[in-house]
Amino acid sequence: MALKIKALYICKMENVLFVVGKTDDQQLISLIERYQQRIVRYGKFRIEIIPDLKNRKTQTVEQQKIQEGKRILNKVTSADYLVLMDEKGKQMDSPTFASWIAKKQHLGAKRCIFVIGGPYGFSDDLYQRADEKIALSKMTFSHQMVRLFFVEQLYRAYTILNNEPYHHQ
Amino acid sequence: MALKIKALYICKMENVLFVVGKTDDQQLISLIERYQQRIVRYGKFRIEIIPDLKNRKTQTVEQQKIQEGKRILNKVTSADYLVLMDEKGKQMDSPTFASWIAKKQHLGAKRCIFVIGGPYGFSDDLYQRADEKIALSKMTFSHQMVRLFFVEQLYRAYTILNNEPYHHQ
Repeated sequence: MALKIKALYICKMENVLFVVGKTDDQQLISLIERYQQRIVRYGKFRIEIIPDLKNRKTQTVEQQKIQEGKRILNKVTSADYLVLMDEKGKQMDSPTFASWIAKKQHLGAKRCIFVIGGPYGFSDDLYQRADEKIALSKMTFSHQMVRLFFVEQLYRAYTILNNEPYHHQ
Repeated sequence: MALKIKALYICKMENVLFVVGKTDDQQLISLIERYQQRIVRYGKFRIEIIPDLKNRKTQTVEQQKIQEGKRILNKVTSADYLVLMDEKGKQMDSPTFASWIAKKQHLGAKRCIFVIGGPYGFSDDLYQRADEKIALSKMTFSHQMVRLFFVEQLYRAYTILNNEPYHHQ
């Protein structure tokens, strides 16, 4: 009997998802964790929570955005490929997003950081540093829920790159 | 002190979401129910589950789609406005989707049926009967998860029509 070895697409590039503020929602957390556990079979992945600002009420929206942006940029090195998840960003279907990930890795990015902003969006500084903007949808979803959408889509991308049936189930 | 009466946009049109197959996922069910409870403050809304076919394994994908389509069309009257949730459909941002709902009601639709198909998509019969196709995203999401996206978006639409802060929170 021939030994069947299933090729597994392994992503050498580390993917990191930056999110602003904790999720208290236990249901969402547990759904997100489920996808996270599946994703790490295919490559390094982690979610990093940028803590909410403590003095929000005394600050304007613009000031909050600038501070949030600074906290995010402090964690980004010049070698990172920085992607903002932005409704006005580029739209892709799932197979295109999968190829996009494969291509980024192929081009030598060591770490790709995806950022889901707070409720007010991104600061100008972040827009200027960003390498790319990607939209999961033209619609606005709660920024908590977008985390779930993102991990499902990243997991789906890996199953597509591996020719696994999930994408058509 | 002046009495403040907050105008509440009430949707007289009934919105129904048809979905194919049960969700076993307790976390998803409970997230979906939470939005469902919020939505019914603004108008009639229910989710109707079209049971999965029992003899799936003995049928081709095409046969399954045709049967699913028939079961759905049996529940649709000629007066219903039928919308397929389809990746290749029209994309709108959230405020546009909100105006779309308001407009449909204004034009006199009594019932609007949104359909989330099974994993193989829709039959030709369904495409022919449909009044419109709307895409929540260009990306493919699990058809279970799309239910959550839909209810969040419908809830968001009503908060937009009511000028409530949710959309910017």
